[in-house]
Amino acid sequence: MNIGLIGFGCVGSGLYEVLNKSNLIDATIKTIVVKDQNKERGLPAEAFSYDVSEIINDPEINVVVELINDSEAAFEIVYSAFQAGKSVVSANKKLIAEHLDELLDLAAKNKVSFLYEGAVAGSIPIIRNLEEYYNNDSLTSLEGITNGTTNYILTQSNYGVDYVTALQEAQDLGFAELDPTLDVDGFDSKYKLVLLIKHAFGLSISPSDIVNVGIRNITKNEVEYANEKGYRIKLLSRAEKVGDKVVGFVAPHYVKKEHSAYGVDNEFNAVIVEALFSDKQLFIGKGAGSHPTASAVLSDVSALKFDYKYEYRKTIENQALEFTKDFFVRVYLGSPYLEVINQVAFYKIDEVYQSEEYVYQTGWVKFSELTTLDFNGSRDLSLVILPDPIQSSNRFMEKTSERLSTLELTLL
Amino acid sequence: MNIGLIGFGCVGSGLYEVLNKSNLIDATIKTIVVKDQNKERGLPAEAFSYDVSEIINDPEINVVVELINDSEAAFEIVYSAFQAGKSVVSANKKLIAEHLDELLDLAAKNKVSFLYEGAVAGSIPIIRNLEEYYNNDSLTSLEGITNGTTNYILTQSNYGVDYVTALQEAQDLGFAELDPTLDVDGFDSKYKLVLLIKHAFGLSISPSDIVNVGIRNITKNEVEYANEKGYRIKLLSRAEKVGDKVVGFVAPHYVKKEHSAYGVDNEFNAVIVEALFSDKQLFIGKGAGSHPTASAVLSDVSALKFDYKYEYRKTIENQALEFTKDFFVRVYLGSPYLEVINQVAFYKIDEVYQSEEYVYQTGWVKFSELTTLDFNGSRDLSLVILPDPIQSSNRFMEKTSERLSTLELTLL
Repeated sequence: MNIGLIGFGCVGSGLYEVLNKSNLIDATIKTIVVKDQNKERGLPAEAFSYDVSEIINDPEINVVVELINDSEAAFEIVYSAFQAGKSVVSANKKLIAEHLDELLDLAAKNKVSFLYEGAVAGSIPIIRNLEEYYNNDSLTSLEGITNGTTNYILTQSNYGVDYVTALQEAQDLGFAELDPTLDVDGFDSKYKLVLLIKHAFGLSISPSDIVNVGIRNITKNEVEYANEKGYRIKLLSRAEKVGDKVVGFVAPHYVKKEHSAYGVDNEFNAVIVEALFSDKQLFIGKGAGSHPTASAVLSDVSALKFDYKYEYRKTIENQALEFTKDFFVRVYLGSPYLEVINQVAFYKIDEVYQSEEYVYQTGWVKFSELTTLDFNGSRDLSLVILPDPIQSSNRFMEKTSERLSTLELTLL
Repeated sequence: MNIGLIGFGCVGSGLYEVLNKSNLIDATIKTIVVKDQNKERGLPAEAFSYDVSEIINDPEINVVVELINDSEAAFEIVYSAFQAGKSVVSANKKLIAEHLDELLDLAAKNKVSFLYEGAVAGSIPIIRNLEEYYNNDSLTSLEGITNGTTNYILTQSNYGVDYVTALQEAQDLGFAELDPTLDVDGFDSKYKLVLLIKHAFGLSISPSDIVNVGIRNITKNEVEYANEKGYRIKLLSRAEKVGDKVVGFVAPHYVKKEHSAYGVDNEFNAVIVEALFSDKQLFIGKGAGSHPTASAVLSDVSALKFDYKYEYRKTIENQALEFTKDFFVRVYLGSPYLEVINQVAFYKIDEVYQSEEYVYQTGWVKFSELTTLDFNGSRDLSLVILPDPIQSSNRFMEKTSERLSTLELTLL
């Protein structure tokens, strides 16, 4: 195999090292294309080209490994690689989340493979396991800590470090970007969730259809509540069958000690899969970093030797399955201002706390009504999902109407 | 695919149910062969045959699923299935651990597959992941809780329940056999370790070459020691590269809170894989039980559709790698009798405790010297491995000889 490598950042240079150190795979990087001619890269300038067509038009190169940040430029690269009959390995979650079906069509037409294990949860082989191992079992739910930056920040928060300090630490350690928006507002986790939903449930969901609430607004008040109740806060990418539909969203969650994600700290990632027969499976590993992600990319390159392709069997089998935002979830909402909390309709209120500085309220809300609020944009409203199981609207309304007579709808 | 199912116990009947409930796989159980004609089985008597040749000689059956307990009878079945050109799926760890290379030769000659994901760690897809995903990465160590019965008993012990009561509970819950020897003395974990070593490091080790120390002799003294130090006791199947060789054994271990196996309780299994590039990966799932194991068997059946075969790439690549018992390990040894402890030569003693009822000693021992003792057979000697990294003999002797002058070799 002759590889054309595009991008030589953290993962790209990691792949270069891993491939040189591993004698277990018969593949060579023939050409490396990068964008910026003036950047120091640890290899002599002669090692690099600056023109993607040197890879695309080279008939000796049969595998393109695309590891750049810019998802629009990546789209052009992958598209032209497919047209040139080359298979592609990518770790670009945004590209794939936004363009998967289109790219798959083109890959199929050109009889090439498109593999992207490195795009989700770094070294955890979750895409391959969903494809290969869970293809006969009926998946019921999937939860993941799929972003190392936010998990690092939340871990520090759980131990009392404030958000700004923890973010700074994550940046100093190289876990967080200078502009952390993609990570801390849950976009990165959302792109990954789009891919997980595709492989777990067979649904093609546009990223814009998935609500992502990040961790920017987690204050010491939310952490105190966690400590009081024995919870920890984790940013979960979550998808599950509720009734006969599938729900999916990214949001901070209070998790109990018994939850598999409770002890998954710092830069580690975890994916928890529940299926009808195999029951609960937990995968934990390093979710980011040069070598862990490069090892996932390398495993894809290696699979190309055998012309491996994802089969997307669930896409064919679950064609009738629908995605919905129409369900009920128990939440914690916190704010310095009572009127901010009161924007949200609660269908059942469990707790209300009010002091001069802070208000919080817990209870059941209709998820589709939450989606009208801009949780990432507003600086004064914190949402954390509570541990109770999600309920379908039908089921919740049935149970609630029975009980509403004995409950006051609003305690305030 | 037409399946001939041999054995209708816990896993066999689970497979029958899972296959009937799952519409995701196009396979039918044509014939079920069982041994005992008089046993009640939840299906009418007409559903069963009692003669294996009805499967072996049936040209319509292309897959034999072997799920019986008797490993010698299983060997005959698998052997004749291969000769008849049928692929085999088995969950019989003892059979496979004792006869793998011989069976693989025969399978290769007859161009059929032999798959056995269900033999190790139930629903955790560890064999497939070692085969597929870690084939380009250099594995450094593998640790597993691969026996649910002993993990259940040890979990209860950690909470103060004594061995006899916990074993009884495990039997009542259906986790433990009436004769628990295979589980509690570590044989079951050892057979699984043989398979893990084959797929992780490429070595074919005879089960008789792997030391298995079980949990029968874990007394309240060992549990108290764990509590004092903040450890928990876990029976680990363990294999790792030490210097340029591979070591492997099954024994109770004191694990620290930071250890990935610390919180894996009751009937859950875990496998922790460390590799050069992908770093640490942890897989957790239900290690036993009817449906979880059946789902692993089913995933093998499903893979046969694509003529999937394990490749054993590490066997080819690691031909020069050797297995060794020549290494040093830090241990806790406990006994009511000082002279029992004194059978073991310590190369460095860290702690000695002596009361009227009990003695224990911690320090470094040479593993090959431990192997002369019958830990499972003797009722008055408890071994637990301490958390420190294993050291190669060369390295240990270098460091120790430097320090020996300032240490008393025996404090007693």
